[in-house]
This record gives sequence, C-alpha cells and structure tokens, in this order.
Amino acid sequence: MSDITVVTYDWVPELPRGHVRDIRLCWALEEAGLPYRVATTPFHDRGAEHLSHQPFGQVPWLIDGDISVFESGACLLYLGEKSEKLLPTGKQARREAIEWLIAGLNSMEMVTVPWTIHHFANDRTGPAWERMDGWLAARLAHLERVMAGREWLAGAFSIADILMADALRLVDRFDGLKNVPATRAYVARATSRPAFIKVRDEQIARYKAADAAR
Amino acid sequence: MSDITVVTYDWVPELPRGHVRDIRLCWALEEAGLPYRVATTPFHDRGAEHLSHQPFGQVPWLIDGDISVFESGACLLYLGEKSEKLLPTGKQARREAIEWLIAGLNSMEMVTVPWTIHHFANDRTGPAWERMDGWLAARLAHLERVMAGREWLAGAFSIADILMADALRLVDRFDGLKNVPATRAYVARATSRPAFIKVRDEQIARYKAADAAR
Repeated sequence: MSDITVVTYDWVPELPRGHVRDIRLCWALEEAGLPYRVATTPFHDRGAEHLSHQPFGQVPWLIDGDISVFESGACLLYLGEKSEKLLPTGKQARREAIEWLIAGLNSMEMVTVPWTIHHFANDRTGPAWERMDGWLAARLAHLERVMAGREWLAGAFSIADILMADALRLVDRFDGLKNVPATRAYVARATSRPAFIKVRDEQIARYKAADAAR
Repeated sequence: MSDITVVTYDWVPELPRGHVRDIRLCWALEEAGLPYRVATTPFHDRGAEHLSHQPFGQVPWLIDGDISVFESGACLLYLGEKSEKLLPTGKQARREAIEWLIAGLNSMEMVTVPWTIHHFANDRTGPAWERMDGWLAARLAHLERVMAGREWLAGAFSIADILMADALRLVDRFDGLKNVPATRAYVARATSRPAFIKVRDEQIARYKAADAAR
C-alpha cells in the first residue's frame, strides 16, 4: 500500500498556525492509524501546479497513488472509506456521519469562518458584525441543544467530529463558545484526543522550523 | 418503491421565493426521473417535530421510508446513490463530482451566502462589505478559470452542478457575475434545464397559493 501524502503550505503567518486545514486530514489519518507523509507547496507562489490540484489556490489536497483529492471535506469523505474508525459502514450510522459532516461544512462553517474574519480584521462594530454575531449565536444555540444529549455527533467519533470540532475550536479561540457549555465541552473532548494534539503540535513545529530556515 | 418526500416551509416571505433550498432536492429528483412529493412544515412555528428532522430549524429535509436526511448537500449525496444521472458510478468521476459538491458547499457558498446577506440587508458600504466583496471576487476568478474550459464541473451534469449553480444564481440575481462570463454562462446553462425551470416555477406557485390561502 502506498502512503498517502497530505499537501499543505510550506509556510504561513503566525496567525493561522495550528489552524491550517491539513490538520483535518492528518488528524483523520492518525485516528485511523494509516501511514502518511506531509509535503509542501509554496505559500507565496501558488502557480499552475498548485491550481491543477486545488482550483481555488487553497490547501490541503491529498495524493494517494494517482488520485488527487481537494477540499478538506471531500478528503475526509475519501479517508472515511478507508477506515471504520472514521466513517462507520452500517448504513444508518454512515448516513448520519455524512449529514453531520455536511452540516459542519455548510450550516456551521459558513458562519464561523466569516465570524472569525471579523476577529482577524479587528472589526467588531456596526451592523455587519451584529448580524454575523447573531447568526453564529443562533446556530450555536441549536447545536448546544444537540450536544447536551450526546458525546459525538453521530454515535461514535467520526469525520463529522473532526470537521465540526476543528471549525468550532477557531470560535473558541476568540471565546465565542462561552454561552454554549455542552458545545465547548464537546470541542475540548475532541481536541484532547492524542491524534489531534500530535498533529496540531506537529503543524506548529513545522512552521516554526520553516521560519528558522528562511 | 415508496415515493420520496421533500419537506419545506409552508410559507416564506417574497424575497427568498424561488430560492428555498428544497429546490435542490426537487431539481435532482426531476433530473433522475424519481417519483416524489413535497410536504410542508410551518415557517412560523419550528417546533420539536421540525428540530427532530432538521436540528438547525432549517429546510429542507428528505423522507424516504423510515429514513430522514437533513442538509441539502447530504440529501443530494443520498439521491446521488439512486441515479447515475446525478452521481456517476465510475470511481474517478464519482470522486470528482463529490469534491466539486463539497467545493460548492464550503469554498463557494461560505462566501456567496454572507455576500448576499449584505444585499438583503442593503448594507454595502464599509470594510466588512469590502472584504466580503473582495473575497467573492477572488473565489469567482478561480472558478472562472475552471469554467472557461468545461461545460459541467465534473464531466457530465451532476449533483455538483445543482449545488454550485443554485448557489451562484443567487449571486447573479444581484448582478455579481458580471465579471465572470464563463461562470455566468454556466449558471444560465444549468438553470435553462427543464427540470430546474419546472421546480423553480412550482416553488414560486406554491408560495403564491399559500398567500392566497391565508
């Protein structure tokens, strides 16, 4: 079996370190115990080779033999097919994990990413911010009701939790989970898993080493 | 075979008519020639029954026998398994359709929905709007390069096109595609399909009838 390669930027600024989305793939691969390596693509020069793998000039993408997959959500679905530890094989459990993965991508992250952009831009006044903050609060209130009654989104830990917890820990970084204790505990539960800690620390160390090499 | 039921709101305000996301499911079902019916849930009173099917209090959800699926993206994946007209069965073609579906949900719609909220709120001045408009322009420039060379996102027409075209026609409504002619032509191509025209017209007619019944 050929190893899987996760491709990410060779360097990023301080701010996103520990949050670059290759972490989702590495986390899944560690959970599943699948061998992989991390390769890099230039952050500053996103040329034709980059765009041939990732048409929006983002990272990560995944290489598995002659297969190349982009979009972290699609990569998680792809990896899910390789291990029951990531995506259950039972029909109903599988369906639920997939619907919660999509909910993370489209119902939650559609709100959390623009919300965090307001934080990164230090722009948290005025009607646009008020709308965004209210939108997030409404979504989190719904999720809180769900998380109050369960440990993981879809029965056992799955790719849905990797996606959702990774999206929400960025909100937590800006103290945006203070009114949703069950959700906050869920994120803490997910991010205390050894697989997550390992890959987050490795990502931060990798970019620190890239600084030193400059 | 039991018919599939698509559940949507019993009424919505004028503004979103023709854009409520049940249209994605009905469009897919029409393309595949699968029998279905549309059922409704109260727009104004989103109670426990609603939340048991759709935990964020949104629509649509889909009922197929004893199976209930939420998130339009997850419903499209579910329907994709029922027809090659929606999701090819060849491994590579299938993978590409899924990655483009996810790209529509997470790389494009994460930007288009907040962008259209600025339009709906009539708030298109200041740094938050400038950031949002620049973000959309950057994403569309990447998609434009892709669409300049292809008819559909992943070989043949698929659920990826239903998702992407539905997300982008909302941008087109506010003239946001004027600088990306290949993308605009793609959206026009998708939305001139008889299956789309039928379900859009039916959605608008359904809400007009709901007005009359009030």
